[in-house]
Amino acid sequence: MEHDEGWLQLYGGMTEDERKIRDVVNTWMEASANGDLDTVLSLMADDIVFSVPGREPFGKTEFAEMSRAMGDVGMDAKTEIVELQVLGDWAFIRNHISVSITVDGQTSERSGYTLSLLRREKDGRWRFARDANLVT
Amino acid sequence: MEHDEGWLQLYGGMTEDERKIRDVVNTWMEASANGDLDTVLSLMADDIVFSVPGREPFGKTEFAEMSRAMGDVGMDAKTEIVELQVLGDWAFIRNHISVSITVDGQTSERSGYTLSLLRREKDGRWRFARDANLVT
Repeated sequence: MEHDEGWLQLYGGMTEDERKIRDVVNTWMEASANGDLDTVLSLMADDIVFSVPGREPFGKTEFAEMSRAMGDVGMDAKTEIVELQVLGDWAFIRNHISVSITVDGQTSERSGYTLSLLRREKDGRWRFARDANLVT
Repeated sequence: MEHDEGWLQLYGGMTEDERKIRDVVNTWMEASANGDLDTVLSLMADDIVFSVPGREPFGKTEFAEMSRAMGDVGMDAKTEIVELQVLGDWAFIRNHISVSITVDGQTSERSGYTLSLLRREKDGRWRFARDANLVT
């Protein structure tokens, strides 16, 4: 039963919360790839704070405005969760992200890490609440 | 009793843990300014992970090696905690940091934000455990 053992190794040690948080990350990435901004916004706490190098932190409204302004930029992102820890109603993840961005037929690659905090909100759903993005 | 009211406003709403965490941050900054690497290292969990743009995350040993290699670089850093939340035995802070770095009489300025997680360890002390540094 090699297959079952592999499955157990991969998923057996994962709690329900860890599975839910991985779902949030995967849903975010898929929705981003599909240009489905409403879904992405639904995965953020209203008080989210994004931190990126070289500018002031910003929130949900500014994220939405920037996403709309970007329009039809082609983005293909891959994410790998390198660490996930649940701390009660909060959790943190460290992600490695690689992104291919295509503008006017020119593709550029970026990669790097994020440190994100998620919070379990009143409706029981986990949402991103703080994010530091070091992708360069 | 204006003075007492001011004091209450500043410190009255702060829990014991918040005070301890602010002390850790202040001690770190002072020890850094004084080149007291041993004290800085004592404020880090052994499993700390530092994330910065443009390179792989690194740990305590590498931090120590880099600090020793930097030698007599003059650094004057100011930090302002813009957010602090205690989550049980973990806490997160967002810091705004401004640094003046002087090498061979030339001073350059850097500033930006950090997102850091601290953990209350078995000896009851809070130590830095994860850090994302967006200072550019």
